[in-house]
Amino acid sequence: MKSAQDYKDSIRAMRPVVYAFGEKVEQVADHPAFAPVLNSIALTYSMARETENENLLTAKSPFTGRMTSRFLHICQSPEDLIKRCELSKFMTPFHGACIGARCAGTAALNTLFATTHDMDRKNGTDYHQRFLKFLKHVQDEDLTCSGMVTDAKGDRSLSPGKQADPDVYLRVVEVREDGIVVRGAKAHQSGAALAHFNIVAPTTSMRENEKEFAVAFAVPPNADGIIHIAEAPAPNARRLSNNDEMDFGNYEFGVHGSTLVIFNDVFIPRERVFMCGEYEFTADMALTFGAFQRLSTTGCKSGHCDLACGAAAVAADYNGCEKMAHIRDKIVDMSFNSALAYGAAIAAGYKARPTPSGVYVPDNLLVNAAKLQAVEAVWLASKLATEIAGGVICTVPSKKDFENPDIALYVDKYFRGKADVSTENRVRITRLVEYLAGQGSIVPTESSHGGGPAAVQRLMIRLSSNLNYLKGRAMKMAGIK
Amino acid sequence: MKSAQDYKDSIRAMRPVVYAFGEKVEQVADHPAFAPVLNSIALTYSMARETENENLLTAKSPFTGRMTSRFLHICQSPEDLIKRCELSKFMTPFHGACIGARCAGTAALNTLFATTHDMDRKNGTDYHQRFLKFLKHVQDEDLTCSGMVTDAKGDRSLSPGKQADPDVYLRVVEVREDGIVVRGAKAHQSGAALAHFNIVAPTTSMRENEKEFAVAFAVPPNADGIIHIAEAPAPNARRLSNNDEMDFGNYEFGVHGSTLVIFNDVFIPRERVFMCGEYEFTADMALTFGAFQRLSTTGCKSGHCDLACGAAAVAADYNGCEKMAHIRDKIVDMSFNSALAYGAAIAAGYKARPTPSGVYVPDNLLVNAAKLQAVEAVWLASKLATEIAGGVICTVPSKKDFENPDIALYVDKYFRGKADVSTENRVRITRLVEYLAGQGSIVPTESSHGGGPAAVQRLMIRLSSNLNYLKGRAMKMAGIK
Amino acid sequence: MKSAQDYKDSIRAMRPVVYAFGEKVEQVADHPAFAPVLNSIALTYSMARETENENLLTAKSPFTGRMTSRFLHICQSPEDLIKRCELSKFMTPFHGACIGARCAGTAALNTLFATTHDMDRKNGTDYHQRFLKFLKHVQDEDLTCSGMVTDAKGDRSLSPGKQADPDVYLRVVEVREDGIVVRGAKAHQSGAALAHFNIVAPTTSMRENEKEFAVAFAVPPNADGIIHIAEAPAPNARRLSNNDEMDFGNYEFGVHGSTLVIFNDVFIPRERVFMCGEYEFTADMALTFGAFQRLSTTGCKSGHCDLACGAAAVAADYNGCEKMAHIRDKIVDMSFNSALAYGAAIAAGYKARPTPSGVYVPDNLLVNAAKLQAVEAVWLASKLATEIAGGVICTVPSKKDFENPDIALYVDKYFRGKADVSTENRVRITRLVEYLAGQGSIVPTESSHGGGPAAVQRLMIRLSSNLNYLKGRAMKMAGIK
Amino acid sequence: MKSAQDYKDSIRAMRPVVYAFGEKVEQVADHPAFAPVLNSIALTYSMARETENENLLTAKSPFTGRMTSRFLHICQSPEDLIKRCELSKFMTPFHGACIGARCAGTAALNTLFATTHDMDRKNGTDYHQRFLKFLKHVQDEDLTCSGMVTDAKGDRSLSPGKQADPDVYLRVVEVREDGIVVRGAKAHQSGAALAHFNIVAPTTSMRENEKEFAVAFAVPPNADGIIHIAEAPAPNARRLSNNDEMDFGNYEFGVHGSTLVIFNDVFIPRERVFMCGEYEFTADMALTFGAFQRLSTTGCKSGHCDLACGAAAVAADYNGCEKMAHIRDKIVDMSFNSALAYGAAIAAGYKARPTPSGVYVPDNLLVNAAKLQAVEAVWLASKLATEIAGGVICTVPSKKDFENPDIALYVDKYFRGKADVSTENRVRITRLVEYLAGQGSIVPTESSHGGGPAAVQRLMIRLSSNLNYLKGRAMKMAGIK
Repeated sequence: MKSAQDYKDSIRAMRPVVYAFGEKVEQVADHPAFAPVLNSIALTYSMARETENENLLTAKSPFTGRMTSRFLHICQSPEDLIKRCELSKFMTPFHGACIGARCAGTAALNTLFATTHDMDRKNGTDYHQRFLKFLKHVQDEDLTCSGMVTDAKGDRSLSPGKQADPDVYLRVVEVREDGIVVRGAKAHQSGAALAHFNIVAPTTSMRENEKEFAVAFAVPPNADGIIHIAEAPAPNARRLSNNDEMDFGNYEFGVHGSTLVIFNDVFIPRERVFMCGEYEFTADMALTFGAFQRLSTTGCKSGHCDLACGAAAVAADYNGCEKMAHIRDKIVDMSFNSALAYGAAIAAGYKARPTPSGVYVPDNLLVNAAKLQAVEAVWLASKLATEIAGGVICTVPSKKDFENPDIALYVDKYFRGKADVSTENRVRITRLVEYLAGQGSIVPTESSHGGGPAAVQRLMIRLSSNLNYLKGRAMKMAGIK
Repeated sequence: MKSAQDYKDSIRAMRPVVYAFGEKVEQVADHPAFAPVLNSIALTYSMARETENENLLTAKSPFTGRMTSRFLHICQSPEDLIKRCELSKFMTPFHGACIGARCAGTAALNTLFATTHDMDRKNGTDYHQRFLKFLKHVQDEDLTCSGMVTDAKGDRSLSPGKQADPDVYLRVVEVREDGIVVRGAKAHQSGAALAHFNIVAPTTSMRENEKEFAVAFAVPPNADGIIHIAEAPAPNARRLSNNDEMDFGNYEFGVHGSTLVIFNDVFIPRERVFMCGEYEFTADMALTFGAFQRLSTTGCKSGHCDLACGAAAVAADYNGCEKMAHIRDKIVDMSFNSALAYGAAIAAGYKARPTPSGVYVPDNLLVNAAKLQAVEAVWLASKLATEIAGGVICTVPSKKDFENPDIALYVDKYFRGKADVSTENRVRITRLVEYLAGQGSIVPTESSHGGGPAAVQRLMIRLSSNLNYLKGRAMKMAGIK
Repeated sequence: MKSAQDYKDSIRAMRPVVYAFGEKVEQVADHPAFAPVLNSIALTYSMARETENENLLTAKSPFTGRMTSRFLHICQSPEDLIKRCELSKFMTPFHGACIGARCAGTAALNTLFATTHDMDRKNGTDYHQRFLKFLKHVQDEDLTCSGMVTDAKGDRSLSPGKQADPDVYLRVVEVREDGIVVRGAKAHQSGAALAHFNIVAPTTSMRENEKEFAVAFAVPPNADGIIHIAEAPAPNARRLSNNDEMDFGNYEFGVHGSTLVIFNDVFIPRERVFMCGEYEFTADMALTFGAFQRLSTTGCKSGHCDLACGAAAVAADYNGCEKMAHIRDKIVDMSFNSALAYGAAIAAGYKARPTPSGVYVPDNLLVNAAKLQAVEAVWLASKLATEIAGGVICTVPSKKDFENPDIALYVDKYFRGKADVSTENRVRITRLVEYLAGQGSIVPTESSHGGGPAAVQRLMIRLSSNLNYLKGRAMKMAGIK
Repeated sequence: MKSAQDYKDSIRAMRPVVYAFGEKVEQVADHPAFAPVLNSIALTYSMARETENENLLTAKSPFTGRMTSRFLHICQSPEDLIKRCELSKFMTPFHGACIGARCAGTAALNTLFATTHDMDRKNGTDYHQRFLKFLKHVQDEDLTCSGMVTDAKGDRSLSPGKQADPDVYLRVVEVREDGIVVRGAKAHQSGAALAHFNIVAPTTSMRENEKEFAVAFAVPPNADGIIHIAEAPAPNARRLSNNDEMDFGNYEFGVHGSTLVIFNDVFIPRERVFMCGEYEFTADMALTFGAFQRLSTTGCKSGHCDLACGAAAVAADYNGCEKMAHIRDKIVDMSFNSALAYGAAIAAGYKARPTPSGVYVPDNLLVNAAKLQAVEAVWLASKLATEIAGGVICTVPSKKDFENPDIALYVDKYFRGKADVSTENRVRITRLVEYLAGQGSIVPTESSHGGGPAAVQRLMIRLSSNLNYLKGRAMKMAGIK
């Protein structure tokens, strides 16, 4: 399997077309809005090679017969799903941000494995073999795949086929003997510019008159006609003017690095096309992708809350507040809410349903409840960690203040908490809380939408709650005939 | 295994000393404050004999080599724990109340299995063999065992050894060659008068000077010196004056039937004594019992919420409100909160830890989070089901009003919802909601304390959240040396 | 002004047709399902005569020139509205239940004062003079008026004019020279059978084709053709079989006493008809009535929460838990949530808008927010008071157990908390918590619907939030032209 | 009264010693971390001169006989307090940030007015006259005063007199004939460097051995020995590298501009010293200051939530989501929570208590409930506005991307929502939501601590809830003698 350095080198060599903050990026691997994500993804490679993690970060592929990254693994049992969720929870306290393309990548690979199998079974197509070949390739080469689903969407009150600009949903504009040509965009693609392949799939169910939008394929991020445009949230802006590690809380990893990915009539060769017009499979596909994505998102966000617990607890120690009842209570609330999300996700894996292809899909009710709760937990953690850390989260000065001899003594003296803790350390943990609470990062805002918004999860809960059975039981108990 | 009738007959024959509403109860099996619980427990026998439930309600005992009730089963794997939780969730929509002694019974048997093993290993005692013999007996005979833990407790600010009246914690008052004599009481004992055996254990950790309170044993509820005094909550009072099934929502099962169990110098023969003075094992014992009890309580309360979903949904149908967005949203909130509790409980089983005895104990963080959430879910379900059912939950008249010819036409006419639903059916579902919401039952209030109160669960979450590891990760990320 | 005894005697003399639990009630003043409400209403008379309350319970009527009950007062300033809210909050800790007809009575009188004025101004009718005459009469005689608004409603998905049975909304079936004849029913009418007059008004806005439902009038509860059918919730049932004051928590007052009031072709003389067909005023009427009703309901429910704080705090004292951090926190949460509801109600009075008639109407946004929060506060108080009081809330025995010599010593011994508090007192406060938490009363369930359900308050908040102005400010700040 | 330009010029002339991001600031009025606050404060001057605002922004001073800024007004009636709260709520949708020193200024002036009166009455000192002279001066000159209370605090588990470094609470180091010399720091001082005077008071109650910390005075921010060190939160950092107004959401005002204010042995002339050693008045002083500060903070944060409602509603319009039930519900939740905070604050003013000096102090229970709720409302608004605006809140590109001809067409095309809304406008409102939700500003984190943290408000609620009276009522109802 690849080393972290191998991964970085291979990305460095790809040179996709990327713009950030209005300028063309020469080398994405070196740009401050992407390099931290490169570090996060590299961490998935280096940690996979550590013996104590091998059971979690790798799994044996039945297709290659060799150990493969769990991010590329097809989940063939509840245990596989649970491990996948645990993996995200375990890693987040190490990076505190986003491992880029890799989560959606697992979701996309598993979804296509299942859907190509179903399409072939019904229609006699050969998508599954094409996909298997592609899968073996990425497993053999230990490649990073992103999952690309969310379209630009335009007017949210209109379906894909009714938009003023048909391109706001990615679509096939030409079918050729040797492949297809696609146009449109995929939005909010975490780490897409740092992957070896982007796996594209429809974002929602399509109707018969929307066949052109029912398209799935794999494409490298540097393919002809693809342009990446970087997100520019407030926290990223800080990286343009400041390189003082101490000011960031999570300097090494703390960036999401998503891009808007524009497909400007991009040719996709036939062997990498995994759906083309089979609209009747898109509903199930979106549901399956969502279930996988919510499973790992929940693990990740629970891990984020865990890290916030740790950071807030250290801040309380440094302030001398660690024994106060209200501080302890706040940390319990953070743990409790994180545990609920995590627990529901584990249960979603445990109660997974097998599909005809052999892929196990997380239980719909539980995995949607898990994600909905994960977002609650993240926002609550932001609020509580802020309360625990104190007003200093807003007012802590910069590293350069600590270095300016005119004022260094004063900032050291007056920003000190407990006498035996260095002011620098108090500042460092404060910066981490600032980062985790969403003032110095996009984690909370991103959590609200990554893996789909609350309204979708609530809809899925409604559709999955077995209400008719329960109505029957209530009627029986009440003596209704 | 016993039939429901066998069970009822055997209880009928025991004739324990029971008082209810100030009067001595001639036959507990016939008393309105107990008969519904008898029905619930009988349901655990009848359903265990239905083929489709055998995997859930029964398990193979390694001690007898035969199938045994899962309520009497020693949990030897995560799977066993998960099944135990599922069992409670599955059954609650059938009875809507309480299967009496059986939940705490599982907890007590598993806890004693583990603790007797640990005590013997350290002290060379023979408790485990005694206990195993007892266990085989109850499995062979398919008996109902209750778990008795909660003491009267007196002044909650004082430890057991400091109380004005030493009897407010059950204690050994005499140790004899052939057994021990105990005095005190166990409070809030669901279904204790309807069990074949009560398994008694300490309610909290004891110190060295509190050895007399470190006592565990099994005793039948009709032993000499035992007196049961029935609970008398408002909803039970209604059963004394009214026998109209339609007025109760859950006439057949809707009672908890707990008693205060007084031990008036009761002799316990040596072979049924499973702890006597080993105070240093009481802390672990209380923790293990709590973990088991919270696992099944969570399943039960999640099942209660599920049933409330069903009942509220039927009420909405009958009112003509089922398509309103706010009604759907409320049902989603009920499902969501129930799923979180259930998910955390399943995960607590999945992440169980083995003990030296072979018993698996649910993960402490997850099982306490599960119970805490279960109570939230129950109270929220009460509120939302009330909102969904409408003001009629307070004002619905009695069956006798529907039968009085002077007004029968009017109540039928004006309490009707949708034209094609009979008023009687609307009234019936309203009564069930009234019952489930806690006006016609003690379910919500009971849920707050059964399995231990919120403060205990929060304490356990604090102690189980691995905070030091997370503090370490936060410090590393923040660059703190 | 009337004494409490005068009030009771006058009601005793009215002898309306009432059924309860299937039987005709000989004397409503003596029936256990009504007598406690009679006590509550009588309390409004006796307390009004106490000097220290005169500023709160009475006000000077500009129509009679004399002091009148504030329940009958027309609110002519923000101060009047605030006092009206304070009155409800102040009285609830004295009765802990419901002062029956009197709250909706204030709302109905004020609403009709405003609406009759508006109708006359537009249509040249003489409703306002009729109404003023009626108002002076009830003020002069110090009568109790109920406000009757909620119809039977039938299928909630259909408007009044579309119901299978047209009578499910109360309507005019005949217009005569000397008056009108009405048919239908009003549901959930607190204390209607214990009032001197019932003031009837439409429950919702009517359209042009629904003129027959646009009707308002005053009628005594014993008018020919009126039948009252009592609510029969679980807690009321207890009063049929038990007369032991100690078992009720709030024996003297703890009943709501609402009835379904059937209008079986009831004749209303012309001088008491205050609307007849003016459908275009019904929307405003419903809104005004709702605003008044939510103001006093919020005061009442905040007072209920205050009482629950007090009861829970006493229970904690008796258990020896009063200094525990989590107990204190729970009481703070109760106070906090009660204060929010109360504060919003006071502010709704302060920000009231005058109508052309001179009546001030509470601010819509604030009064709806207040009521919505009041219900949250009540349910939370139920949950927290239950948690504070402990499991004994479910299992406390009855007074007869304390009197039975076989077991009296045991229940006294084992239900004792702190050594220096009598067990009886601990039982008494436990019973009050049981009552307040909704197991021994209908307070929480009633709160969810009295004054209108949450969905209505949320709709009103949406319509009152001045969103367009705020959108304009946001657009300006964002630099949108 | 001063014009906005007068104010700006006068601040420009003061030239306090300020450091920001490690560098000495030449002219604070021009620095990006302060200029927006200068704009906010200037807005308080310009709007005060607009006729339609004069009733809200100005009041007649009984001390000068002339109209004065309401920020400098002594509140002599409930109406004054309510207006003060309304003022903050009204202005926030205009600036969306912080009017710097002015809120705490009102609190400090009113507190000193009351406390100097009380001290003189007891001790025969002449503080009140000194203070009145100072007050007239600032009213005459229409000056901006900040309120400086929060100390550096060091180890939070130790009281002021026990700290390793005595300077972490500001203290008197020398008392001279003509004045005093003080040393220490005040932390998190919003707009202190942009005020004409800073009013310093103790942050907490002091004991007899802590007299040196019982000190209050007025001092200009440019006094000898004072150094300001600017906060450096993540959002401020962006202002160092980017000057594109479109990227900020709230470019003109969106900065808090607080400083750590170091008192390096600063001399305070006698006539500006308002407390020096009277430790026994510090408890009441802290409580009074807190009550005033929480009143205006609540108004401000409710205004922030209102603005967030407006911004989210515009974002929903532009996305085509404005009619979706869940979007409407989220906006209702935002309005509801804002209204609760606002309502409780208005009520706190209405129920104010007069002090011997004539100052009215907001009701403690209500004003603390108001602030506690305001923070809940702000964080909830962040979460809901994020959910409403969509994932684009994280991924929207910068203005420079819209200007780069290589990609301008693509970003315009794919970031468009509704076809008839310009992409620029959608980006602008998204940036405002990003700003308000706390990713582009410190508003939410600041709200958690400005006006004191939640734990203090909860303590005040506990102490103000009249629990003994309520316990008495509960005992009476329960029949406890």
